[in-house]
Amino acid sequence: MGKNMVLRLLEKGIEVVVWNRSPEPAKEVVKSGAIRAESLDDLISKLEPPRIIWVMVTAGETVDELLNKLVDKLNPNDLVIDGGNSFYKDTLRRSKMLSKKGVRFMDVGTSGGIEGARHGACIMVGGAKEDFEKIEPVLEAAAKPEAYAYLGPVGAGHFAKTIHNGIEYGMMEAIGEGAAILKHSPFKYDLREVFRIYNTGSIIESRLIGWALNELKEDQNLTGISSVIGSGGGAGKTKAEGHWTVDLAKKLCVDTPVIAASVKVRDRSDQDKEDSPNWFRNKVVAAMRWQFGQHPVKK
Amino acid sequence: MGKNMVLRLLEKGIEVVVWNRSPEPAKEVVKSGAIRAESLDDLISKLEPPRIIWVMVTAGETVDELLNKLVDKLNPNDLVIDGGNSFYKDTLRRSKMLSKKGVRFMDVGTSGGIEGARHGACIMVGGAKEDFEKIEPVLEAAAKPEAYAYLGPVGAGHFAKTIHNGIEYGMMEAIGEGAAILKHSPFKYDLREVFRIYNTGSIIESRLIGWALNELKEDQNLTGISSVIGSGGGAGKTKAEGHWTVDLAKKLCVDTPVIAASVKVRDRSDQDKEDSPNWFRNKVVAAMRWQFGQHPVKK
Repeated sequence: MGKNMVLRLLEKGIEVVVWNRSPEPAKEVVKSGAIRAESLDDLISKLEPPRIIWVMVTAGETVDELLNKLVDKLNPNDLVIDGGNSFYKDTLRRSKMLSKKGVRFMDVGTSGGIEGARHGACIMVGGAKEDFEKIEPVLEAAAKPEAYAYLGPVGAGHFAKTIHNGIEYGMMEAIGEGAAILKHSPFKYDLREVFRIYNTGSIIESRLIGWALNELKEDQNLTGISSVIGSGGGAGKTKAEGHWTVDLAKKLCVDTPVIAASVKVRDRSDQDKEDSPNWFRNKVVAAMRWQFGQHPVKK
Repeated sequence: MGKNMVLRLLEKGIEVVVWNRSPEPAKEVVKSGAIRAESLDDLISKLEPPRIIWVMVTAGETVDELLNKLVDKLNPNDLVIDGGNSFYKDTLRRSKMLSKKGVRFMDVGTSGGIEGARHGACIMVGGAKEDFEKIEPVLEAAAKPEAYAYLGPVGAGHFAKTIHNGIEYGMMEAIGEGAAILKHSPFKYDLREVFRIYNTGSIIESRLIGWALNELKEDQNLTGISSVIGSGGGAGKTKAEGHWTVDLAKKLCVDTPVIAASVKVRDRSDQDKEDSPNWFRNKVVAAMRWQFGQHPVKK
């Protein structure tokens, strides 16, 4: 994601200094015009204050580790943007921590998958309005036309992105369930044709149906796709946006049986038996995740 | 729906003889060039055998009543098309009944809402392949470009449409749940802006999100929309496509917790308390149904 966003920014004439823990992706973007930093200190020295530092790392401890290192090296009025899928309460805590040193903080939820990052993402922004205005040229460069929005104070971007992902879980599971019924129905459907028509002027026409179709076109049985559905954006995270959505809903007294069920299906997806109807249902969800995000699906 | 489809067919140069129980819609399409029949007998006399009769009436008994009247009046090789949301087992039974008299039968599931019917629908076809080929020019005229598909023998069209609607139920409920969380969140979101960005390059970009946005643009609180969500395409039907999807899934051993939950929420939507968070969730679903189908929402 980070690499693709950098390529997009460079293409749009934004100057980017890059630092990455593993050097390979950084080397690649340097070929396209990015300035490479050898270390965090090098990164900071290569940026003129007030700096804008866009962090794209896996949500969770990795963000804290990085911010803890950064905070002592930055100047007041430097601005840090967390572009990952962080939980909004972590974002509020981090903002407070950074603000003690006068460092500004924004949260940016990004959607649109790998392709979106490369050719224009969908960007949900939280933070101070004046910081938003300051970084607007960068947002405009990173986003598809019209595809960024200022949604409110710090936390508002990550919160909205979490709910986006909760909705996404529910929509995907509905599609997986329907596909499994079709596959095991009394009719010998050509699922490529059913999904083609589902995505041509129907009520459920959507990017998700389109991604399912793409994968079905390669193989109607989704043989190479795992039936185990991961959660969240990164590998190895056990709880992520879907779970957070359900927890938030409980606190706000909103009943969300659909999003809750979709999370449960994912969590238990490793227990569905090979060649069971649920197996295919899960594969359809995993296939969509693979299509838009190249989220790991054991092949 | 029927009226809009007739207008579309006329526009595309298809000759249409219309008969409708209540005369008003028929009178309207006559102005656009349709030939009006005064009765079923008149309709039949005005069509040359082998006839093509496209039935657009509320699923259920109304279809049987009409077909029972038609069957004795038609000739062998006349073709009847059921364009409504019938249950596929009814379709199989009706096909058998008509075939005893040599009358041919096809099932056509239509999606895309009121606007789709007027400006090009999405059409899922079941029936004999040779009948499909015979009516293909009519389908091509009624559908958006590329938006019709032959899906299999009699029943395959209605079955696929039922599952389409089941998926639709689940997707809509996921969107309603997310919207309710946003509304009751710690952030004072402008839901128009959140839904605008959700529909601009995000993973959940879809026609449904667009319809929710349209209604939110008019009034963020959806004041005029009922929190009671109907089922199926017609008013007054208690069990329809969502329920059928869940029943079919059970028989086929597919677990569909998301579609099942979305059906339950609708069935119980009249019990959610005024101004409760669930109230708004239901309104969002009702608002989308209103936008695409003008399905009755008490205003």
